[in-house]
Amino acid sequence: MFSVTVRDHMLIAHSLRGESFGPAQRLHGATYVVDATFRRVELDPDGVVVDIGRAGEELRAVLAELDYRNLDDEPSLAGVNTTTEVLARLIADRLADRVRAGALGDTGRALDGLAVTLHESPVASATYERPL
Amino acid sequence: MFSVTVRDHMLIAHSLRGESFGPAQRLHGATYVVDATFRRVELDPDGVVVDIGRAGEELRAVLAELDYRNLDDEPSLAGVNTTTEVLARLIADRLADRVRAGALGDTGRALDGLAVTLHESPVASATYERPL
Amino acid sequence: MFSVTVRDHMLIAHSLRGESFGPAQRLHGATYVVDATFRRVELDPDGVVVDIGRAGEELRAVLAELDYRNLDDEPSLAGVNTTTEVLARLIADRLADRVRAGALGDTGRALDGLAVTLHESPVASATYERPL
Amino acid sequence: MFSVTVRDHMLIAHSLRGESFGPAQRLHGATYVVDATFRRVELDPDGVVVDIGRAGEELRAVLAELDYRNLDDEPSLAGVNTTTEVLARLIADRLADRVRAGALGDTGRALDGLAVTLHESPVASATYERPL
Amino acid sequence: MFSVTVRDHMLIAHSLRGESFGPAQRLHGATYVVDATFRRVELDPDGVVVDIGRAGEELRAVLAELDYRNLDDEPSLAGVNTTTEVLARLIADRLADRVRAGALGDTGRALDGLAVTLHESPVASATYERPL
Amino acid sequence: MFSVTVRDHMLIAHSLRGESFGPAQRLHGATYVVDATFRRVELDPDGVVVDIGRAGEELRAVLAELDYRNLDDEPSLAGVNTTTEVLARLIADRLADRVRAGALGDTGRALDGLAVTLHESPVASATYERPL
Repeated sequence: MFSVTVRDHMLIAHSLRGESFGPAQRLHGATYVVDATFRRVELDPDGVVVDIGRAGEELRAVLAELDYRNLDDEPSLAGVNTTTEVLARLIADRLADRVRAGALGDTGRALDGLAVTLHESPVASATYERPL
Repeated sequence: MFSVTVRDHMLIAHSLRGESFGPAQRLHGATYVVDATFRRVELDPDGVVVDIGRAGEELRAVLAELDYRNLDDEPSLAGVNTTTEVLARLIADRLADRVRAGALGDTGRALDGLAVTLHESPVASATYERPL
Repeated sequence: MFSVTVRDHMLIAHSLRGESFGPAQRLHGATYVVDATFRRVELDPDGVVVDIGRAGEELRAVLAELDYRNLDDEPSLAGVNTTTEVLARLIADRLADRVRAGALGDTGRALDGLAVTLHESPVASATYERPL
Repeated sequence: MFSVTVRDHMLIAHSLRGESFGPAQRLHGATYVVDATFRRVELDPDGVVVDIGRAGEELRAVLAELDYRNLDDEPSLAGVNTTTEVLARLIADRLADRVRAGALGDTGRALDGLAVTLHESPVASATYERPL
Repeated sequence: MFSVTVRDHMLIAHSLRGESFGPAQRLHGATYVVDATFRRVELDPDGVVVDIGRAGEELRAVLAELDYRNLDDEPSLAGVNTTTEVLARLIADRLADRVRAGALGDTGRALDGLAVTLHESPVASATYERPL
Repeated sequence: MFSVTVRDHMLIAHSLRGESFGPAQRLHGATYVVDATFRRVELDPDGVVVDIGRAGEELRAVLAELDYRNLDDEPSLAGVNTTTEVLARLIADRLADRVRAGALGDTGRALDGLAVTLHESPVASATYERPL
């Protein structure tokens, strides 16, 4: 099994709903360092899982929809509790939609799976893995 | 599949038994940077794998029993060769005991698995993974 | 010359005023990883620059006043453009006030200087250095 | 399941064949930070996955065959498109050959699997995993 | 004193002249992680050392002239022994030329100094500092 | 001004004397990640501050005298409170002795200064700087 991981980051504001979140119920923010991992059983004829440059561009495009925003005010996130876990799934699903729409070419359509990790601080992160 | 990882560290002294350990047979020490990963198929109603703050507190509680100690003198480790691998399992098992005892609430009881990684230096680490 | 550095972090929301800030004029947020460096020409009788545990507690106390907050709504920051540079100075000055008030004991009063670095992402940081 | 990871690095020159590689078609280079992970269901009688010192020496021996070289001129790589993914597989396969030849002793022969990750920059890496 | 640091990276091939370089006399390569630090006694009216976004763009522009290239074949480097130290000075000097030409606006012209660090591996780096 | 930094690490046990050290008065240990920085106003004829390979070997030689040891039992450290600050000075002074004895050749004798940083955990470090 092969995989390729690309990294980027975004700076967002948000608040979380639920007493268990304590001070994170207040409006605050985070720099999310985001790793997107693309998995595939065999390499393509060029010897890659996916073009690493295009993979990075797709991750950037997905993050650009959230970057420098207050997620509490994002229409596409209305009613969503934007925990790190939920954001990892959201980014993975949006990447998956792009891959299936051909953003990474035929090579991308041969991918077997995708994982997204969001690092919210040096001591905490969350990951969501899904098939493709 | 979702997971959440929290990180902490501890500073311990110990020695290892067995010729293959070479100079590590002498009393020495390590800063272990410890990552504990909690896995779960679905998120709880708050949208989390587990409360990340409480997960960090449980990891701290487990490490506090070892931190700033000479493991060669710890009664609970008598006869144990405290390799990085063995310590990773010990910490994972102690975390699992706490989770099953309810330390992370009902959400914790729904966890599927747990992994603990100990980084002993910038170039070496060990991991133990287990179901919950 | 000796120095000791302690690290902590905070998660805040804010917005910046000024056209040059582009998208950062919108309400967004950041995880600031904060390094506080304490400098001194000679060590104290215990062989330290300052008690590293207490230094970490003082940094935590200063960050706790900002952590998990929207800085745009903080009364103590009214009218302040909370750039990374300005926050580095604010944290350094608040640490300096505590040190001069005796928070780090007589050893702290013998410090020569202080520097605070805020890492706002893996690719950007700002530092403020001052005498004590 | 247990695993142990050792890290080393190598500095190589190479060029990639295929229009999709864009500027990487030119002769350039990389510092590859290489993580080799050895997996095993149970620990050996010493309480280890494998001797971590010897594991590091074997990784070094494999990297030494490539380090400070122009991979375009390496006879053993003639006709190979040396992408990060292909190099991860090459290094894993060479490590596997050594392990099966007894380089890590009987403990090494009991390993279940091996993974090699090459970090080519702070924002891109590739991994190859295989059974042993 | 204030400073701002931006980070980027480049992938180059080169060889070094001089027996003391040992295997680095062969054609090889490196991923240079590059930190550029801009220093200034006082902040500008917006509360910044320099616009951090523009600083990153200028660093990118300077690195783009070297990235994905064999430095042994670069006309502008003919006769230059491209050690890490020499490349740090080269990048600092090219950044200084751009700053003086107005690339960072009037704010840039008020800078007091500049430092460039090149990390060639996890265990080695070089820095060049100069006034502006 | 130029500088070159090399990194290595050591694993030691020790205890600290003085009530202010709290739990660190017990026998414990640390992985010290050690950065040694060599400074020089001008480069040598090869275009380097110092041979980076030899600098790394000298740092390794100094650390080898302490690595995998209980510092409380080291004859050369009898009566020394081995705080992180004191160890940083000890390592810097031992490196300086070697440099003056010619370990880095004539180039080493032209060095202007030396700094040693010991990272004892991800959140704490100490530095000692001295002229040469």
